[in-house]
Amino acid sequence: MSVLVVGSVALDSIDTPFGKAKRVLGGSATYFSVSASFFTKVNLVAVVGDDFPKKYISLLKKRRIDTAGLEIAEGKTFAWKGRYGYDFNNAETIYTHLNVFQNFAPKIPREYKKSDLVFLANIDPDLQLSVMKQVGKVQLIACDTMNYWLKNKRRAVLEVAKTVDIFLLNESEARQMSGEANLLKAGRSILRMGPSKVVVKKGEHGVLLFSRGYIFSAPAYILEEINDPTGAGDTFAGGFMGYLGRKKRIADADIRKAIIYGTVMASYTVEDFSLRRLVHLGPNDIEKRYKDYRRLTKY
Amino acid sequence: MSVLVVGSVALDSIDTPFGKAKRVLGGSATYFSVSASFFTKVNLVAVVGDDFPKKYISLLKKRRIDTAGLEIAEGKTFAWKGRYGYDFNNAETIYTHLNVFQNFAPKIPREYKKSDLVFLANIDPDLQLSVMKQVGKVQLIACDTMNYWLKNKRRAVLEVAKTVDIFLLNESEARQMSGEANLLKAGRSILRMGPSKVVVKKGEHGVLLFSRGYIFSAPAYILEEINDPTGAGDTFAGGFMGYLGRKKRIADADIRKAIIYGTVMASYTVEDFSLRRLVHLGPNDIEKRYKDYRRLTKY
Repeated sequence: MSVLVVGSVALDSIDTPFGKAKRVLGGSATYFSVSASFFTKVNLVAVVGDDFPKKYISLLKKRRIDTAGLEIAEGKTFAWKGRYGYDFNNAETIYTHLNVFQNFAPKIPREYKKSDLVFLANIDPDLQLSVMKQVGKVQLIACDTMNYWLKNKRRAVLEVAKTVDIFLLNESEARQMSGEANLLKAGRSILRMGPSKVVVKKGEHGVLLFSRGYIFSAPAYILEEINDPTGAGDTFAGGFMGYLGRKKRIADADIRKAIIYGTVMASYTVEDFSLRRLVHLGPNDIEKRYKDYRRLTKY
Repeated sequence: MSVLVVGSVALDSIDTPFGKAKRVLGGSATYFSVSASFFTKVNLVAVVGDDFPKKYISLLKKRRIDTAGLEIAEGKTFAWKGRYGYDFNNAETIYTHLNVFQNFAPKIPREYKKSDLVFLANIDPDLQLSVMKQVGKVQLIACDTMNYWLKNKRRAVLEVAKTVDIFLLNESEARQMSGEANLLKAGRSILRMGPSKVVVKKGEHGVLLFSRGYIFSAPAYILEEINDPTGAGDTFAGGFMGYLGRKKRIADADIRKAIIYGTVMASYTVEDFSLRRLVHLGPNDIEKRYKDYRRLTKY
C-alpha cells in the first residue's frame, strides 16, 4: 500500500555537542518519506522555495519518493536552526524562518488520492483537516502535532483527533493535550478524544502504544553514539507507517511490529546529522538491527 | 536456593504529592527481604534500635524471613525523612539519622553461611567486603551502592566490583562510576571493572542489563497510580534475586526473566507507601502482573 505524507521540507542548521551542520536537508515530511521509502511507495506533499538545492530533490527521487506533490514556490525554503545540549530531549530553537511554508496550502495531486495510508506530519491542524477533506476515505490516517498547535489551535487539534485513526505525539505533548501528568492516564484520555490508537514517543526511553484493550511498551534501541536527534520522531513515524504499508490488512500484531520498525529506523537517524545515515541504509541493515533489537528485548 | 541480604532496616518518613507516612517500615534490606520472600528463603542481616516496633519484626517473620541476623542494639533505629515532588526520580532528603546503623558491623550467623545467593544492599563498601570475607564462596553475589560511596569510598567500591558477580546501580550512579554520559558506554565500562553482569535501574524507564556478549532492555510496568517510589530499587533486587533463588542452575534466560520479576515486584511497591502493597500480595498477583507485563511487551 502507498503512503501519502503532508508536512515540511526544510533546511536545518544544527549544533550538538558532537558537531554541527549548516542548511542541511530536514523537515518532518523529509524524514518521514525517506524512512517510509525503505518499506513502501511514498507520495510527498510539501513546499520548498526556489533556493532549495536540486541535489536534495535528486536524493528524494533516488529513494523513489514521488515528488509530484512537492511544490516549488517563489521565495525561500523553511529554515530552522536549533541547538542541543547533552540532554537530547530538548532542542533550543535559535531561529525559525517559515518563509514559503507560511502560506503552505497543501494541494493533493489527483493521482495521490489513491494512497491507502495518510500521514499528516506536524503542520497547522487546519491544514491537516483540509488534507483529510481532499483525500476522503482511506485505509488509515495517522497524524502528529506539536505544543504550539496544542496551545494556540486546540479546537482544531481536537477536530483532527476525532477523525484520525492513529495519533502520534511526544511525551510532553501527550501531557499537554490531556492535562494528565501520568502517561497511562494521558494516553487513555487522548484515546477518548477519538483515535483508535495513540502512540506516545518518549525519545531515548522508547514508545508507548495505547489502544482500546491493550497497551504496548517498546524501549528504544540502545546506541553508543548519538550525534543528532533531529528527525527521530518523524523517522519513527515513517518506519511505522511504511511497515504497515507492506500489509494488505492491518492486524494488531502488525501495529506492534511497525512500532519496532519505526524504532529501528529512528535509531539509525540519530547516529548522524540530517539524513546522512538514513540514505545510506540497505535493507540488510534494517533487518540486522531488527534482529539485534529482538535480542535486546527478548525474554 | 536461599538468599542472604545485608543492608538497612529503617524507619522512614515520606512526603509525596499523593500523601505522607511517618516512621513507617523502610530500609534497603527490608524491601529486598519482603520482595525476595515471595520466591525463596531469605536470611536477613541488619541492625535496628530498641525503639523498633515489634509489629515490624512480626511482619518480617510472617513473611518467613529469617531474622536471626537482625541485631537489636541499644539506641535508636536508622531514620530517614524524604520528600518527592512530581519527579519521582529524585528524593529530597530532609534528614538522615544513622543512629545504631552508624556502628553497624554485620556479623553473619553461622547457619546463614550456607546461603547460596548473597545480596549486599547499599551499605559502606568496606562492610560489603567484610561480608564477602565472612561468607566465602557462594553461588552468586550481587551488590548495590550509592552516589555517596562512589564519591567518598571509590577505591573500596572498585574492590567490591572486582569480586561480585552482579553489580546493580541506578542510571546516575552508573554514569558517576564510569565517567561516561552514554549508558551503553557506562554499562560496558563497569563490566570491565569486574562483574559479569551490570544492572542499571532507570526507575520509570525500566532496566538495562549488561553482560559480556549481550544487553537486555526491559521497560517498566506502566501504572496509573504511583504513590511512593521509595524502595522500588531494593524491591526490584529482591524479586530479581528471589527468582534466581528458585533455580538450581542459573542460565542467561533465567537472568532475563528475573529482571522481569524484579520489575513486577517494584511495580507493586510504588503503588502505596512503605511495604503496604507488597505485604498484601499473593502469589497470584505476581503471576497475573507477570502476564500483564508480557502482554505489554510482546511483539
